[in-house]
Amino acid sequence: MLPDGRTATVHVEGNRIEEIGRKREADVVIDGRGKALIPGLVNAHTHAAMSLLRGFADDMPLQEWLSTRIWPAERRLTAEAIYWGTKLACLEMVKSGTTCFNDMYFHMDRAAKAVEESGIRGVLSEGFIDLFDPARAEAQFRQARDVVRAIEGMRCDRVVPALGPHAVYTVSADSLREMRRWSDESGYLVHIHVAETKEEVDGSRRDHGKTPVELLDALGVLGPRVVIAHAVWLEEGEVRMLASRGASVAHCPVSNMKLAVGRAMPLAAMRAAGVTVSLGTDGPASNNSLDMFQTMKTTALLHKFAANDARSAAAGDVFAMATAGGARAMHLDAGAIAVGKLADLVLLDLHRPEMTPVHDLVSNVVYAATSDCVDTVVCDGRVVMEGRRVPAEDEILEKAAAFAAKLAED
Amino acid sequence: MLPDGRTATVHVEGNRIEEIGRKREADVVIDGRGKALIPGLVNAHTHAAMSLLRGFADDMPLQEWLSTRIWPAERRLTAEAIYWGTKLACLEMVKSGTTCFNDMYFHMDRAAKAVEESGIRGVLSEGFIDLFDPARAEAQFRQARDVVRAIEGMRCDRVVPALGPHAVYTVSADSLREMRRWSDESGYLVHIHVAETKEEVDGSRRDHGKTPVELLDALGVLGPRVVIAHAVWLEEGEVRMLASRGASVAHCPVSNMKLAVGRAMPLAAMRAAGVTVSLGTDGPASNNSLDMFQTMKTTALLHKFAANDARSAAAGDVFAMATAGGARAMHLDAGAIAVGKLADLVLLDLHRPEMTPVHDLVSNVVYAATSDCVDTVVCDGRVVMEGRRVPAEDEILEKAAAFAAKLAED
Repeated sequence: MLPDGRTATVHVEGNRIEEIGRKREADVVIDGRGKALIPGLVNAHTHAAMSLLRGFADDMPLQEWLSTRIWPAERRLTAEAIYWGTKLACLEMVKSGTTCFNDMYFHMDRAAKAVEESGIRGVLSEGFIDLFDPARAEAQFRQARDVVRAIEGMRCDRVVPALGPHAVYTVSADSLREMRRWSDESGYLVHIHVAETKEEVDGSRRDHGKTPVELLDALGVLGPRVVIAHAVWLEEGEVRMLASRGASVAHCPVSNMKLAVGRAMPLAAMRAAGVTVSLGTDGPASNNSLDMFQTMKTTALLHKFAANDARSAAAGDVFAMATAGGARAMHLDAGAIAVGKLADLVLLDLHRPEMTPVHDLVSNVVYAATSDCVDTVVCDGRVVMEGRRVPAEDEILEKAAAFAAKLAED
Repeated sequence: MLPDGRTATVHVEGNRIEEIGRKREADVVIDGRGKALIPGLVNAHTHAAMSLLRGFADDMPLQEWLSTRIWPAERRLTAEAIYWGTKLACLEMVKSGTTCFNDMYFHMDRAAKAVEESGIRGVLSEGFIDLFDPARAEAQFRQARDVVRAIEGMRCDRVVPALGPHAVYTVSADSLREMRRWSDESGYLVHIHVAETKEEVDGSRRDHGKTPVELLDALGVLGPRVVIAHAVWLEEGEVRMLASRGASVAHCPVSNMKLAVGRAMPLAAMRAAGVTVSLGTDGPASNNSLDMFQTMKTTALLHKFAANDARSAAAGDVFAMATAGGARAMHLDAGAIAVGKLADLVLLDLHRPEMTPVHDLVSNVVYAATSDCVDTVVCDGRVVMEGRRVPAEDEILEKAAAFAAKLAED
């Protein structure tokens, strides 16, 4: 069954959907009876290796959580820990139907290796923080270039580098402008945190006389390759600014609620202005999972609640954000089950109590499905998981747990 | 592993926990290595057979949803449909770790049969609606007595009757008083919807010069056997009133958000006043699942968001609401892993990516677990599910789907 309720055979040739309709000869046949086929979900903002810090600290205000718990633990993160943390995150993402994620963290050359091995797609940016210090900026650019070169050197279509200026309160104007130039030259996406908290916006106004979005626009940074994570504290004019520049937004409702960022992201205004909205989990230390099914449902719940209108964030719209919206934000020719699109596909098992009955498949996907409905995952035309079995799962769980325990030790 | 992080052997004799500590001889041994043992979750407010209407209508305002979609479909519900709908719901609840639920619907004698067969506990009330018509009230009491008698006649400790006056806008003062008298005589719980929407409170003020809670108190209805579903639109004085009468609250955050009831239930005030707070999913037509793990996480997210404080509704507090709070509301000597308590227990598989690592087990249970972590369920000392296998699952899915299709036909 396809999202629109039709039943059809989907034929994949290479890494793309070649035909939808009649049965044909094929090397690999996956039986979809009793199952639903949806586009792979796109997690448009996360810090995957923070899986190692899942449950390490909760129920704390954002700044206190970062400064007393997360940052000290992150200082103990090694490249090897990040490799295994990313392996763990990819395993969780595969098992919950995510076929592409947009990741910002450290040692991303090692993360890239983990993504390559996982079979799904990663858009990977080395987190860039210069704290307005030119010497540090130079070192950070060197580091970023090394990581980009390493990822390019892998020559894996599924694993692509991006640029990761952390935020306007941690990255200088010069570096932000340089990021935009680099993106223009290379075509790399720019992944940045913007307007997550009121404090951030107030600070930007105080320091620059502009909000973060206004500042980014004044610096010429905004454009169609910019993915803005959070975008909670935006006014109407800023929403229109994003729309006119073609920048996309990665909405992270679970993390925003858990960290109590103070209000709901202005979703209705963004949709009205035509901003591309995608969904993200944020890192598993502030979510605490990478489950995009949960993020879809929470998106619907949050906006119905915040707008005081049960019609807000309807199931079909939310499903589109997690699929087509995410693909558009990632500049990926996927996110739909249509001829010519990349074969990033997920088969959901409908033979489960929470998926019975099927009055409306998309409603079930957004409101009733658990991530364990995911039976089979195809990415770039290859089977990544079938019948929920992923190779080397035991080793990944064991190694990741060991590295996580080390982080908590000191 | 127990919720407090200890490792121990839990010995069950009959239907109670007899010892926690050393290994002993036993007829049945369940290996808990790599697993966590938690009390069975209590779903304190639902309409289980509405599983047949899952996804039948979404994204609509409450009154329109009820009057144009739900009520017309409910008129086509037969006793047999409710039996299979309740079977489906019980299957979903078992597989998501719920060992007791508080249900209000119709044909509850048939629902009772489904609960008996499921192996978990049900507190079952026939929905009572007299619309202020004495003749209708008489017929409804007759019906309620018949159902109570039928349930009592089953002589199953796990399946107990309760009284289900629907709400103050559908049930007369005389009937409400009579319910309280009946509850005093019999010890049955009284399960009622209260202050779900502002319209309900405004209507009560208009018609009675009192809010629903004030009205119930004036009628002498409130007491320790009263379970109040929703309790969203309460003022401080009403919260204190509930506390002083010992009435408990079943908080349903997912349904409240999905139906956009307009604000968050005043959880902090309830906790401060000492009201027993339990958690419920509400019916699967307005949730759209019966997943108490999701309800736990949404409770935490909603209250952090609404209070603008990440410290609100901390993991441990939310976990207590779904276990000990639910048991207290149901007057059930369960909800904790302690000697002498009823053996309503759930083993969670920790060997899963979303449960790795375990820095804090309760954090993982509330923020990271999916319902599929539930491996084994014990209720009243008997194994209801082991290794996620439930007898006759295929038949339940097939029959429930067929009855659901019939509901949608006309």
